[in-house]
Formats: sequence, structure tokens, C-alpha cells
Amino acid sequence: MGKIIPIDVLGECGHPSPFKANYPKFFTDDNGVVRLVHTLDYAPGASADDIEYFQRAGARERLFFRPEETTVGIVTCGGLCPGLNGVIRAATFCAVEGYGVKKVLGFRYGYQGLAEDETYPPLELIPDEIDEIHEKGGTVLKSSRGPQDSGRMAETLRRRGVNVLIVIGGDGTLRGARDLQAELKARGLPIAVVCVPKTIDNDIGVIERSFGFETAVQQASEVITRAHAEAKSIRHGVGLVKLMGRESGWIAASASVANSNVNFCLIPEVPFGLEGPGCFFEHLRRRLESKDHAVVVVAEGAGQDLMAAAGGEDRSGNRRLADIGPFLKDRAEAWFRRAGVEVNIKYFDPSYAIRSTPANAADSEYCLRLGYNAVHAGMAGKTGLVLGLHNDRLVHLPIALTAERKLVDPQGWLWQMVLQATRQPVCMLGKAGPSPAAPQNH
Amino acid sequence: MGKIIPIDVLGECGHPSPFKANYPKFFTDDNGVVRLVHTLDYAPGASADDIEYFQRAGARERLFFRPEETTVGIVTCGGLCPGLNGVIRAATFCAVEGYGVKKVLGFRYGYQGLAEDETYPPLELIPDEIDEIHEKGGTVLKSSRGPQDSGRMAETLRRRGVNVLIVIGGDGTLRGARDLQAELKARGLPIAVVCVPKTIDNDIGVIERSFGFETAVQQASEVITRAHAEAKSIRHGVGLVKLMGRESGWIAASASVANSNVNFCLIPEVPFGLEGPGCFFEHLRRRLESKDHAVVVVAEGAGQDLMAAAGGEDRSGNRRLADIGPFLKDRAEAWFRRAGVEVNIKYFDPSYAIRSTPANAADSEYCLRLGYNAVHAGMAGKTGLVLGLHNDRLVHLPIALTAERKLVDPQGWLWQMVLQATRQPVCMLGKAGPSPAAPQNH
Amino acid sequence: MGKIIPIDVLGECGHPSPFKANYPKFFTDDNGVVRLVHTLDYAPGASADDIEYFQRAGARERLFFRPEETTVGIVTCGGLCPGLNGVIRAATFCAVEGYGVKKVLGFRYGYQGLAEDETYPPLELIPDEIDEIHEKGGTVLKSSRGPQDSGRMAETLRRRGVNVLIVIGGDGTLRGARDLQAELKARGLPIAVVCVPKTIDNDIGVIERSFGFETAVQQASEVITRAHAEAKSIRHGVGLVKLMGRESGWIAASASVANSNVNFCLIPEVPFGLEGPGCFFEHLRRRLESKDHAVVVVAEGAGQDLMAAAGGEDRSGNRRLADIGPFLKDRAEAWFRRAGVEVNIKYFDPSYAIRSTPANAADSEYCLRLGYNAVHAGMAGKTGLVLGLHNDRLVHLPIALTAERKLVDPQGWLWQMVLQATRQPVCMLGKAGPSPAAPQNH
Amino acid sequence: MGKIIPIDVLGECGHPSPFKANYPKFFTDDNGVVRLVHTLDYAPGASADDIEYFQRAGARERLFFRPEETTVGIVTCGGLCPGLNGVIRAATFCAVEGYGVKKVLGFRYGYQGLAEDETYPPLELIPDEIDEIHEKGGTVLKSSRGPQDSGRMAETLRRRGVNVLIVIGGDGTLRGARDLQAELKARGLPIAVVCVPKTIDNDIGVIERSFGFETAVQQASEVITRAHAEAKSIRHGVGLVKLMGRESGWIAASASVANSNVNFCLIPEVPFGLEGPGCFFEHLRRRLESKDHAVVVVAEGAGQDLMAAAGGEDRSGNRRLADIGPFLKDRAEAWFRRAGVEVNIKYFDPSYAIRSTPANAADSEYCLRLGYNAVHAGMAGKTGLVLGLHNDRLVHLPIALTAERKLVDPQGWLWQMVLQATRQPVCMLGKAGPSPAAPQNH
Repeated sequence: MGKIIPIDVLGECGHPSPFKANYPKFFTDDNGVVRLVHTLDYAPGASADDIEYFQRAGARERLFFRPEETTVGIVTCGGLCPGLNGVIRAATFCAVEGYGVKKVLGFRYGYQGLAEDETYPPLELIPDEIDEIHEKGGTVLKSSRGPQDSGRMAETLRRRGVNVLIVIGGDGTLRGARDLQAELKARGLPIAVVCVPKTIDNDIGVIERSFGFETAVQQASEVITRAHAEAKSIRHGVGLVKLMGRESGWIAASASVANSNVNFCLIPEVPFGLEGPGCFFEHLRRRLESKDHAVVVVAEGAGQDLMAAAGGEDRSGNRRLADIGPFLKDRAEAWFRRAGVEVNIKYFDPSYAIRSTPANAADSEYCLRLGYNAVHAGMAGKTGLVLGLHNDRLVHLPIALTAERKLVDPQGWLWQMVLQATRQPVCMLGKAGPSPAAPQNH
Repeated sequence: MGKIIPIDVLGECGHPSPFKANYPKFFTDDNGVVRLVHTLDYAPGASADDIEYFQRAGARERLFFRPEETTVGIVTCGGLCPGLNGVIRAATFCAVEGYGVKKVLGFRYGYQGLAEDETYPPLELIPDEIDEIHEKGGTVLKSSRGPQDSGRMAETLRRRGVNVLIVIGGDGTLRGARDLQAELKARGLPIAVVCVPKTIDNDIGVIERSFGFETAVQQASEVITRAHAEAKSIRHGVGLVKLMGRESGWIAASASVANSNVNFCLIPEVPFGLEGPGCFFEHLRRRLESKDHAVVVVAEGAGQDLMAAAGGEDRSGNRRLADIGPFLKDRAEAWFRRAGVEVNIKYFDPSYAIRSTPANAADSEYCLRLGYNAVHAGMAGKTGLVLGLHNDRLVHLPIALTAERKLVDPQGWLWQMVLQATRQPVCMLGKAGPSPAAPQNH
Repeated sequence: MGKIIPIDVLGECGHPSPFKANYPKFFTDDNGVVRLVHTLDYAPGASADDIEYFQRAGARERLFFRPEETTVGIVTCGGLCPGLNGVIRAATFCAVEGYGVKKVLGFRYGYQGLAEDETYPPLELIPDEIDEIHEKGGTVLKSSRGPQDSGRMAETLRRRGVNVLIVIGGDGTLRGARDLQAELKARGLPIAVVCVPKTIDNDIGVIERSFGFETAVQQASEVITRAHAEAKSIRHGVGLVKLMGRESGWIAASASVANSNVNFCLIPEVPFGLEGPGCFFEHLRRRLESKDHAVVVVAEGAGQDLMAAAGGEDRSGNRRLADIGPFLKDRAEAWFRRAGVEVNIKYFDPSYAIRSTPANAADSEYCLRLGYNAVHAGMAGKTGLVLGLHNDRLVHLPIALTAERKLVDPQGWLWQMVLQATRQPVCMLGKAGPSPAAPQNH
Repeated sequence: MGKIIPIDVLGECGHPSPFKANYPKFFTDDNGVVRLVHTLDYAPGASADDIEYFQRAGARERLFFRPEETTVGIVTCGGLCPGLNGVIRAATFCAVEGYGVKKVLGFRYGYQGLAEDETYPPLELIPDEIDEIHEKGGTVLKSSRGPQDSGRMAETLRRRGVNVLIVIGGDGTLRGARDLQAELKARGLPIAVVCVPKTIDNDIGVIERSFGFETAVQQASEVITRAHAEAKSIRHGVGLVKLMGRESGWIAASASVANSNVNFCLIPEVPFGLEGPGCFFEHLRRRLESKDHAVVVVAEGAGQDLMAAAGGEDRSGNRRLADIGPFLKDRAEAWFRRAGVEVNIKYFDPSYAIRSTPANAADSEYCLRLGYNAVHAGMAGKTGLVLGLHNDRLVHLPIALTAERKLVDPQGWLWQMVLQATRQPVCMLGKAGPSPAAPQNH
């Protein structure tokens, strides 16, 4: 019979949904239709009782909030990601056109706008005025980094009469949403906090694919094509491309597989050495001597152990990384100089140019779905939840479940594809190095 | 503890895989790692014994064929689809670079090249020579439509010494592969037939997403943007876009959601009337009178009941469809003329331009994966199987299981999104029309 | 020392330009800075007195209209062309931000909006509201085809207080502008009519390059790449692409040279036969038999002599053409059937998809320049003129001078490049056919 | 009747052109068809005798070299530029398919391959093998920087039997070509040296537009769009884009006009101050305080006077520039910090990603034309010349004439358009600064 992972609710749903008239059979039931989690694999001896399920996202037949009295707020936090405007637009359309809510407020500059409401008053979002924002990159609500005081944010929501707050942001933002939910509860304010997870790195636990990721991989692949052209046009040419991925190598690995012109892919999950025998530079040299050029893709979080710690954290509380791109370039140039071997490295750092593009079709579709379902969840009084695609369906996850980061499994199919597409060595740690990371459950 | 859906094998796997040395932990076990099917949903009272699983795709530790004596054949059949060259390239690389097989033969012109081998001798595929083919649309092996005699094809495979045949094609092609497998079995020829399903329409049963589909949706979305520009630039302008989708509206529906500028989406799964009260033209007129323009997307298989049957079948045995695009345009122009209302219809038929593009990044990655895993399956002596993505993992499916077509469910999330994005009426059948299709299990 | 081709003026320029304060040296003098025309080539025995010059476009130091009392009108006529919105935007910005005019009115639906002003009142164009329109295809003012009564248009201009009318359109539109200018003169209305010539076909006489043309060639080239992929993927595959070009083959010829995958380019300027010996189908057959595929580009106006006249004219007074695309496809299929030779033709008709794209960078720059200089000319009271690029500089041309069509010269460098890039025969008229067209002065 | 600027020839043209049979009327005469230069403007009192003309490029009826005994060499030098492969391909096709020469040799690694011929032997270029290279960025011949010994290069040409050498490169390369021509003359070697000028910066004197420039502007414009999205998505956001342009601001200025989202464009031709009153930062601050974001485009050679000299020269003899991009970013951040005003600068450095793209359609067409005409000139024994577009026609220029750099004229129409599109101040030098540069003859 299994177990459905529960989602917090503000109270009983006493109001009929106005969607009912138009879409009679579209409602999703909290209990009737759910999804299992973690337990896809055949487990001899397992009982059906052990299976865990997620609650499925979707419009509910009965609502906690009375639409015509409801105000929805939206806020975007952290760095850019393709599709932000698509989520904003979809949530606004669903709330106004679908439910007929009273008002949709767009808080500006991320949590800062929620905390400093007098300085940065919110915009009212009107469907007709934002009808084409999804065709542009960036976020019309603007963003900022870093946490803000939960009390001040709660106070703004109360004063502005917000009933449902849709928060679009990454893991720091989700932590902030959890604190805010707690604060609201402590104050007895029945305000729903619904999160749309945003990570261009695609590394939020449990969630199959985050919006903007496929667009980023497409853009990254196009940059790799250019790096390939540079590398092939000079003797011992190296096209070195740094891609996003602070803790995980999803973009780097996927783009390397998609492009198929990459010779070395370096990611945080797979340690490597630079200068010793059996290490990266030796393999790079061999490649240059046999093929005259190489394309190297490195995730920004790769090889952090090789550099002196940069120290500190940024305003979002993210560990500040040392910059692996210029570091690799300098070290390689020095190593090849000592070895008396010519090398010509062209360095590409396309991160801003990638993250500021509009969403491609697949992500646009996904963003529309996320925006609509965030409003559906909020209108039903669900709170403290994250929307996510899991086994190809959209589900409700408790915020806490998404805290774990999703990593590229060095034993999994993606890294296997990378090794086959690049033909790079399984291990570039040299003789004394440790063996590759242990398999992860992926 | 449930049941694994079996896959035919040619015999016992007596040879160690040469992948072993390099990738010690990458092998997938036939029994140990599998996936469940059909039974994701929470079913009170269900027993774990009822759960069905698919065999997972991947490299096997022991092989049926001795690599250095193995010849792999590849053939592409039917219409174009983004990614064909990617699958050809990946399978060739896996066979030659991964396993060190003796030879890879590319049969030309689809099954015709297999049947008329003397007229159209195959090409030998060499990794270095095909290294960049995935960057181009089309298929370097060329294609053809229609079935060929199984006996002649079996004879070609025998004479050319082919051990593993990789067939890339749609449902007609898969039926042909099943016949060929039977013929080979009847002749006692131990030749593996492994299918990579190709359908730009995305409508092969059980399979989550077929390669080339996302690229097609992206391209379709861009055409819709242009139709939107045309429609908005003239009085009562209508941008009418016919998209692929003979039996199912996946491309039309996904592109309509992704683009968000579509006002009416017409697909085979949802019947509609044209001229009566409550039918399409009346709604179109209302839209023109209030907004001055409209964008209409129609899947090629939509509204077939409205036209006199075109009759007959094409060479692949596909039912010949009447052409809904010009039909709709003519009928609409006549109806509006009679109604005394101006209408200016710009008709777009981008099908060839869509299907001949190179794969985007997501499809490129998928094609690489399909090509590699087709060789893995064949080398392990598996036969009569289709590779497919199911619940986000790659599995082996018996050919028979894929015969059922996958349709857009008028009750499912995608059509719900279409209705919300377009704001078109749920039903455009008029008063006398039947109610919308019953819900489907999707 | 030569002669400057005169441009009509409404009267003396009595007002200082408000541009003066900011851009002290930017003004262009009517007499001091001009350009020569027709006489670039070395002509032994020629006198400097024979040289003709055009008046150079640019801001004038003294204006006919007092800016703060001036109303500028803009209208777009005829079919779409990349860059229309760019010209509208640039003219509005120049008028409002540069000169500080009272108002800019956008007349809708082409000349129809000017004639039926009560039914279709104009929009006021505000810089902030139209700041991003150049990023979209189409025209925000909408368009229509066909002439309207000059008297009604003159009356609208008078009633709306328009002082400068900027007309963006093709040759029919320019004829209408000339009539309107005459009408305004007859009524004694001092209203300037300034034309920005629009022809995606690039065939307005004297003018080097019209806006939108390069974008169209880029788009056409991309379609040819797809036709090439289709053609190469089937036996005796032919990718047949119909491109714009009613009277001239500029797009077809330029795209054929730019793409370099075209084997036959058919344009109106170069006659060809289809079925006889030495005619097109025979050459096509030879190509298929040696290379197995071919790409054919045909301008819409090519081979009109081969078809029965379609008869009549469209609303713009353009001769109605028979559709060469399907005609060629049908005839070729019949001819090859009779010859017992397989042929598989994939037909592409991308015209709407090409003309509705946004302008590329080169055209965007050009449109900005055209829009600004149209206002400059109008503010100085110049009327009955067309702006055009001539010998790489922007000049004022009397409308009458642009009536002659610019054709591709079969003896000129462009067609020479086409012959070399395609390697098609110089003549495909068969034995009995006439010789190629006589050289034209180009 | 004026004067034709002479081009060196190796001797009398004693051989008929094999083009004759196919293209009877296509030949261009040295004397009959020429173009004038510098003297387009109306000059009262001027005599026709004062007009100077350029020799027109094109196939000649009689050749200096007998095609079947001729070897053509090609070499590419310096940094990448879109279209290099197009020129290589076109020259090879013209020589082999058009003239039927004996052989085409591609020297690798620029002049280094010519000087070190034993180490880097040339490739033979075969039309069928290079048929699709123009679809890729980079150069298949690879490149290198810096001069090489003329004597060694002459010796290689002699030993390899090269008769016509086509040199594709920038101003350093052209200087080298002049030295090589002198060396060949001194040695009595009748070898033609024909140059195709390559400068993505578009700043070679006399030449209207260099290949690759329009592609670069298009790419730059797309990056600016992304910088705009970044800037608009954060408080006081600045998108800072460094573009190519060592001595001249053509790319920066053209892209700023084409994109229309740029607020400040900084180029080498227009000096500016940073920190004082009336200087750049003050204007930037005003912009941020009124609009909350800004887009800044800076050419790499702008503001060099503001930085301590980086000193030295690179291998091509180009003055080494200090890096204005990071300099501007650092100084701006410090200045705003001192001013107590928030600023968030996103820095884009897309140079490698721009120059490594394939040519767009307009440049592809131009490259085809350049490659063909370079061979035409060489076969006719012309030497020491540069091909260039001048007043929209292709002409032969003596190398010496191209030494002067072409600059953006602060009084010309392009900079005028930049000022109007950006609305930036004419002068950002502060009170004590010098006045803007004097007008240049452009």
C-alpha cells in the first residue's frame, strides 16, 4: 500500500475551484493519484508497503483560498536562468485568467524587495502587459543574492495582503523559504509558500531536470563548437571552455556528450591531478602530439582541491570558488613551457552569455507547467513545498527533501557516455592518486 | 516480487567484453537492475508481485559475439528525423572503438539496400570518416520507404557476414524487423536484430520520448513565431501552421505550449467541427473580431473525418491522409466570404524544413546513448528488441510492445496546458457533436 | 562641373534645427556634398560636366517645419519585409527625441488606414512604448495591399494636421506616393512625402541594396541547407526551393552563391526550357545519375513563359504569377516517370517564413539609418523623394527615378558566380532556343 | 581622362583562358573597365583628368600562366575571421574546376609553413574533399602569427613549383607579402603574390568592407542582447561588453547601432575620461539612477591612453594593448564604491566566440567572390596586389595603398547614428579635456 510523502497545508479547502466549469475532468486528487519515489528498481523481497509516493501536482477541485479575495505574490532570487520570465508569466496568467484572483504582485530585487518593501514597492503584474516577456532572457522582476530577515518579509506579506507567495530560486533561496514558512506559521499568518526550484546546474536532489538546464546545455554546446574551431586552427591549439557547475558537472558532462568534439571533460565529482605522470597535462600533451588540437571542458567547481582556497562566501551563502579557468590556463602554459612543447590555449568563459538567453522550446513548455502548477498548489493551501519533475511527472516535494545535492555519478550512464565520447582516461590522478569515487545510487 | 518482461536472446554469452579492462564497474546486469512499467501509480491493494519491470539497457559483461569476428550492419528507413546521423555515428564508434569489431557496414536506401544488395552494395563505416556527420541533418545512409522481402534481406545479411543488424525506423520498419527476426530464426541464422525507434511524431507506445522530437518542437515553435508576425501585420490575419503528427498531436501540442502565441491547436485526438454554431470558424471569427489576428496550429492528421478519404496507402503502408492544411484554408476563406467578414490567411507548411535539421543538444545526447546501447544489446546476443526511454531510463522492449500508438490524452496535463495557453474552447464540435474523447490511460 | 539631380522642396527653410546644439558639425549641405550617379566607369573622352550627382541624405541645418508644431505620420504598405519595425522605430525616435516634434501618428493597414481614417484611426507612437519593436518581425502598424483614393488620403492628412508623411512600401506604393504628392500640391497643402523603399526582392532601380534583403538571403540559405539534407537522404533526391523574386532573381542568385550547395538556380532574367534536349530536365537527370541528388532553387518569377498565364493582377496592381514551384515539381515527376528514371522531389516554399523574420544586424543598422534620414528629409521640407543607398552612401532620389526595375545581369559578376558555384550550364534552352539575354548595363 | 592606378604584372599574357569556351562574355578588360577612387564627391572646378580609377577584378581573357602547368599555393595568417575556409574553398574550386590547374597546395600554419616547409609540408587541396569546409569556422590550413624570412619562403615556393601564391591575412601579413614579392623579383622568380585582406576589425584603408565583418557584427549584436538581459535583471546592473577593434571601433559602433540597446559605446577614435566631472562614470551613474541599468560596449583599443602602456609587441608586430575590459570594470567598481552607489557589472568578453563562427550569407557570398577573383588575378600574372570592395565593386589595389588604416570618423554618419541610438554625450572628456577629433575625410 505504500506511503505518500506528506505536504503541509494551511487548512481545509472550503472553496470550489472556478476552473471546474471549464475543465470538468482535469482535477488531480491528493490521495488518488500519486507517484512513487526512490523505489523504481526491482528489489527482491521488497513489499509493496515499502514503496514511497509523491503527491502529484495539478489543479485541485477545492481550494483553501477564495479566488476573488486572493493576492498572489511572485519573487525571483539569485542568478539568472533561462525561463525565469516564463514562470512569472505562467503564474500570472494562471492566477488572473484561470482563477480570477484579485491581484498578482511582483516583488522586485529578490528577497530584498520583500524585506525593503517601502524602498522597492512591488509591481502589479497584468497579463496583457507581460504577454511576451517569456521571449526574453533575464527576469522582469529583477533579482538579488542573499538572505533577508524573515520577520520583515512576513510583515510585508501581511501588509500587502498576500495569500500565496511563489518563490523562484536556488538552494539558498529554498532555505530562506523554509525559514519564511516557519516565521509565517509562528505568526499565525495563513500564507502559502510555494517554491519553483531554479538551478541552471541541475543539481537539486530528487528533481529530474530543472528548468533552463537544457537551454544551457544547448548554448554550451554551441560555444564548444567555436572552441573546437579555434583549437583546430593553430598548432597545438587548445580550446578551453569553463561552464557552470559549482558542485556538480551536469552541464559540462551533458554538453560534452551532446557536442562530441570534446576531448577532456573535468567535473567536481571526478578528481584529477595536473602535473604528475598519468595526470591531465600528460594526457593533454599526448593528444596534442597525435592530433594537434584538443577541446577541454571544465565545470567551474572542478579541481577546487588543486587551488588554494579562495575563502569566504558570497551574499547567497555560497562558498566562494577559486577560478579554475584561468588557473588551468596558466598552469598548463607553464607546464608546457617547461616541457618545451608549444601550446596555444584559447579560453572561453561564456557563463553570463549562457544564463541570460531565453528558454528553448522544451524549457518554455516546462516553465509554463511550473508556473501554472505553483498557483494550483498555492490556491489549495499547500505550503512549504517545491515543484519538481520526478520520473517524468510533476510532483510536490517537501522543501527539506530537496536539500541534498544531485551529483553526476562516476559509475552512471552519463559519465560512461562522457568517457566514451571523449575517450579520456577513466582516471587522471597519477599513480599515487586515490581510485575514482565510489558508486553513487543514481 | 514482480516480473521482468523478457527479451529474446540468440544463445549463451560465452565471451568476455573487451570494455572490461577500461570501465570495470560499468556493466549492467540482465536481472539485477531493471525497471518497472505501467505501475507507477499508487494502487491500493496492489501486491509487489504485480509489478512489471523492463530490462535495463547497458553494456553487458559477457557477450554472445566475439568482437574481433563480428560485423555490425546499420540501416535507416522511412522519413527523416533530426538525429539519424548521430545514431549511425554513435553505433559505429561503439562497435569499432569500444568493442574492436571487424567491420561496420552501412546499408543504403533503407530496407531496399538490404534486399537489393548487388545493386546497392553497403558502405564500410570508418569512425574517422564519419566523425562529424552528426552535425548535419538527414542520413548519410540514405533511406527509402516500404517493406522488402524478408528472405532476400536475410540472405544479404548471411552473405555479408553480418552478426548484428541495427535498424533505425518507425512503426512500419519495426514490423519489418519483426518479420526479419522470424525469418532469421527460421533459417537458423544467429543474427541479432536491434531496433532504434524513430518517430518525429513521438507516438511510439511505452516510449517516453523519441529522438528528434524535441528538435522538431523547437523548430516548430520558431515557425509559429513567424506565423504570429504575419498574422499581426494585416487585418484579420490568420497564421495557419500545419505540423507533423499523423495519428497524434504531440508536436502540435508541445509547440503550442512552448510558443504561447497560439490561439487554436487542432490535433487528431480531439475532434472538432468547422462550420456550425459552436464550431471552429465561429470561434476563429470571434477571435479576429476581438483581437484582429489569430495563430492556428494544426497537426497533419487532425480533422481527417471532415475530409473525403484520400484513400490508399503509401509505400510504407501508412494510410494516405488528405491534406488538412489547404483544406482548412480553403474552407475558412469560403466561410468568411459567405459571412461577409474579411480574413487573410497565411499558410505555413514547414514539415520538410523541420525534419531535415540537425539534432539539438538534448537529442544529440540521446542519439549517442541510443547508438551505444544498440551495439551493447546486439553484442550480448539480444534480438527482436527496441530501445526506449521509459521513466527517464533506457530499457529493452520487445518489438511487439511498441506496436500500440501513444496518443495525447485530452484529459492529461499536456492538453490541459494547451487549453490554458491557447484559451481555446474545450469543445468545438457544436451542439450536435459528440462529447470529447474519453480519458486515456496516460 | 556636372549636375545635381534636383529634389522637390515645399519652400524655404526658415527654422534652425534643434539638433544644432548637440551635434555641431553633423549637418549635410544640399549643394556642398553630393554624389555622382551612373558615371562611375572610366569613359574616355568624357567631360566632368557630364557627371550626374545625387543629393546626399542627412540632417539639414535649417528646417522647413518648426519642430514643436510638426506632426509626423508613418504608414507601411504591401507585403512583409524584415526591418519594417526598425524603420518605424527609428523615425519615431528621430522625430520625438531628436527634433522634439509635437506628435508621431502611425496610420494602420497601409493606405487603407489613410483613406478610411474614421474606421481605422491612427495610433500615437511613443518612443518608450515601441522601444523593442525592432526585435520582432512584421509591422506594428499592420499593412494592406492596393491603391486608395488620393483625395481621401490628402484629406486625412490635412484633418490630422500631418506635416511629414513617411511612406514605407514597394513600387506600387511609390506610385501611390507620387499621386498623393501631386494631390497635396494641387490642394496647396504643404505636406512632405518621404518614401523609404521596401522590396525584399532588392529590385528597385538605382538603389544598391534594399533593407531586409540580406536577412532574406540569410534565411533562404538556411532553407537551402535543409533542402540539401533532404535531397542527400534518398535516391535521386531533389530539394526544390522556391524563393521570392517576382521579376528578378536577386534572392535566388545570392542565396545560391552564399550556400554553395545549389546545383541549379532558375531566375526570371535567364530563360530555360524544361523537356527538350539540352533543357533543364535533361541536365537534372544527368546530375542525379552521377551524384544521386540535386538542389534546385527557383525564383517565383522564373519560367513564367512556360506556364499558361494565370491572368489578372492582385490588389497592389502586381501581375499575378502562375506558381512555378508546384508546376516544376509536377512536370519533373511526369518527365522522369516517362523516362523511367526514379525521382524524389521535396518541395520547399519558405516565403512567408523568410519575410516575417526580424532584421539581421546589417539590416537593423540600415533601417535605423533610413528611419532617421527620412525624418531629416521631411523636416527640411523635401518631398516626393525616395531614400536609397547608392555607391555605399545614402542619397535622395526623385520617386520617378526608382520606377525602373533592377535586374540580375546574366553577364554580370553575380550570375557569373552563380554559374561557377552551381556549375550549371550557361544555357538550358535546348538547340532551338534563343541565345541568353543580351548584356545589361550593370 | 583620368588615371588608372597600375598593378604589377609578371609579363605578357600569352595563353588563352580555358574559361573562354564556357563563359564567352565574362572577361574583364584591364583598361576598358575600371573604377574611380577617392573622387566620388562633387568638386567644383575639378577636371575629369584628375579622377583616379582602380582596375576592376575579374577573369582575364588571356593568362600569364598555362593552367595545366600551374601550381597554386594558399596560406592563411594571423587570427581567425569568419569566412577563411570560404576563401580557401573558392580559390581551390576556381583553380581546379575553372582553370584545370595542375595542383593546389595548402601551406599550413601561416607563413611558418612556408618558411619551414620540411617540418610542415603542405596539403594538396582537392575540391571533393573540401566541399563543405565553408560551413565551419576557423581555417583548415591553420594559422600562425608573425613574420618569417622572405628568402626561405621564396625558396619553398621555388622548390614546390608554386606559380601563384594566395595570401590571406591582415596588415602584418600584407607587409610580409610585399617583402616576399620583392624577394621573388630579386631572385627572378615569376611567381604571382595575390592578397585577400583579412581584418575582422574592418579597418583596412580604401576597402569598403572586409570579409567576416558583418558576421562579427551580427554575433556581437547577439551578445549585446544577452548583456542587456543581465543588466536589466539586477539593481544598477551594467552589461559591459568588450568587442574587437584594436585601432578602430567599427564592430563596436556597428553593433551598437544594429542592436539599439546600447547606452554607451567607447571606441579608440573618440577619447573619453573616466572619473572627473563630465566624464564617463558620471554619465553612467546618471543613467543607472534614472533607468536602473546600462549597456556599455567598448572596443578593445578604446581608452588606451587611460592605462599604463602594456608595452611590447606580439609576434605579428602588433602593439600589445592593455586590457580595457577588466580595467574599466575595476575602475568603475572602485569609483561607485567611493561614491556610495551600488553597481553590479557583468562583463562579457566574446572575442574568440565571435571570430570562430562560420560566415553568414553575405560574407559567404563575398568570400566566394574573393577566392575566385584571387585566382583570376594570379593566372593573369598580376602580383603584389590586394583584392577589395570599393564603391560596391571588386578591384585590384596595390599593396601599398592598403597600409593606411580606416577609422570611424567622429563626424561621419556611423558615429552620428551611434550618438543618436545610444543618446550618449558627444563628449565625455570633462571640462579640461580636448575637443573631439577633427573631421576625417570619410
